[in-house]
Amino acid sequence: MDSAEVRLRTGRRWALDVTDEVAAFTADKGDGLCHLFLPHATAGLALIELGSGTEDDLLEAVEEMLPRDRRYRHAHGSPGHGRDHVLPAFVSPSLVLAVESGHLVLGTWQRVVLIDPNLDNPDRRLLLHFLPAG
Amino acid sequence: MDSAEVRLRTGRRWALDVTDEVAAFTADKGDGLCHLFLPHATAGLALIELGSGTEDDLLEAVEEMLPRDRRYRHAHGSPGHGRDHVLPAFVSPSLVLAVESGHLVLGTWQRVVLIDPNLDNPDRRLLLHFLPAG
Amino acid sequence: MDSAEVRLRTGRRWALDVTDEVAAFTADKGDGLCHLFLPHATAGLALIELGSGTEDDLLEAVEEMLPRDRRYRHAHGSPGHGRDHVLPAFVSPSLVLAVESGHLVLGTWQRVVLIDPNLDNPDRRLLLHFLPAG
Repeated sequence: MDSAEVRLRTGRRWALDVTDEVAAFTADKGDGLCHLFLPHATAGLALIELGSGTEDDLLEAVEEMLPRDRRYRHAHGSPGHGRDHVLPAFVSPSLVLAVESGHLVLGTWQRVVLIDPNLDNPDRRLLLHFLPAG
Repeated sequence: MDSAEVRLRTGRRWALDVTDEVAAFTADKGDGLCHLFLPHATAGLALIELGSGTEDDLLEAVEEMLPRDRRYRHAHGSPGHGRDHVLPAFVSPSLVLAVESGHLVLGTWQRVVLIDPNLDNPDRRLLLHFLPAG
Repeated sequence: MDSAEVRLRTGRRWALDVTDEVAAFTADKGDGLCHLFLPHATAGLALIELGSGTEDDLLEAVEEMLPRDRRYRHAHGSPGHGRDHVLPAFVSPSLVLAVESGHLVLGTWQRVVLIDPNLDNPDRRLLLHFLPAG
């Protein structure tokens, strides 16, 4: 199966656009499904618009849902890091996109965005697998 | 790859059952996976029961999580529309279902539901792709 | 298409590790995608770390988002059961994982976890389908 690993550095950016990296992977492929996966327990993949403030609106929503100052049982890492471990239950690290003649099927405003409120680990990997049709 | 586009009109209905449309697409196919996708930045797909009030319970939960009267950075559209852009991070516009002999594999009470609290855009498209097994 | 049904008993355990069951299913397969599916309207699948308290942190987050003592329109089952029907909109019962030479592609800390806050139905089924590459 055609696959690739993309190495990313998030640092303090908690929303990172990875659309171009995924599109580069599928560019020389035909029709099929592309599976995107983060092998991490504190990050997720979202399809959202970027550039009009939505990424910060999302961060605020995450802070409301999973406040960093709540007491978490998970006690490793920096204060409040426990909430980063809850996030992938709601923003999954697994995502499937369709590919037509090598092109990712996406709406005009949709970007593939790595959501990573975890400040403790800036090194991230995105795993891509392509399953061709027929 | 076998694909189809379903045109939908949501209007003020924020939960729209699309199960029959998806089932019609897969009916003449064999075994495989069906990829469902909304090319929109303010809608998602959920697998929930309909008809016992869950759709309104979900709307209430969304209103609690992402209140329309919160201040959003995203400032286009009608008041509170910014929250519609956050929704797809939690209710993904991408969904995969298994298909056996043309039949969608679903539980008795599960329906495929387009979740769309966005009142600004009543015209929606659902993109379907079928990947056959072997 | 290669498929299997795993029968599970959740009882009062609302987070059940099913990674080993999925890995056993894919062990004799090659490269491809594995589709995991719960044919239930009150459960979801999450990729989270287990064993450091995250499962209880997640339950607490679910209780905050969807408190059992809120009034739900869905009125069947034990008090507050209506919120169990909302959960799958946020924690989807559908999940896709990549498989390489029979091995599930997962990060070191990721486990496949059945999330099931529903105390009314302890009998659960997990449906697995494998789509081989090429």
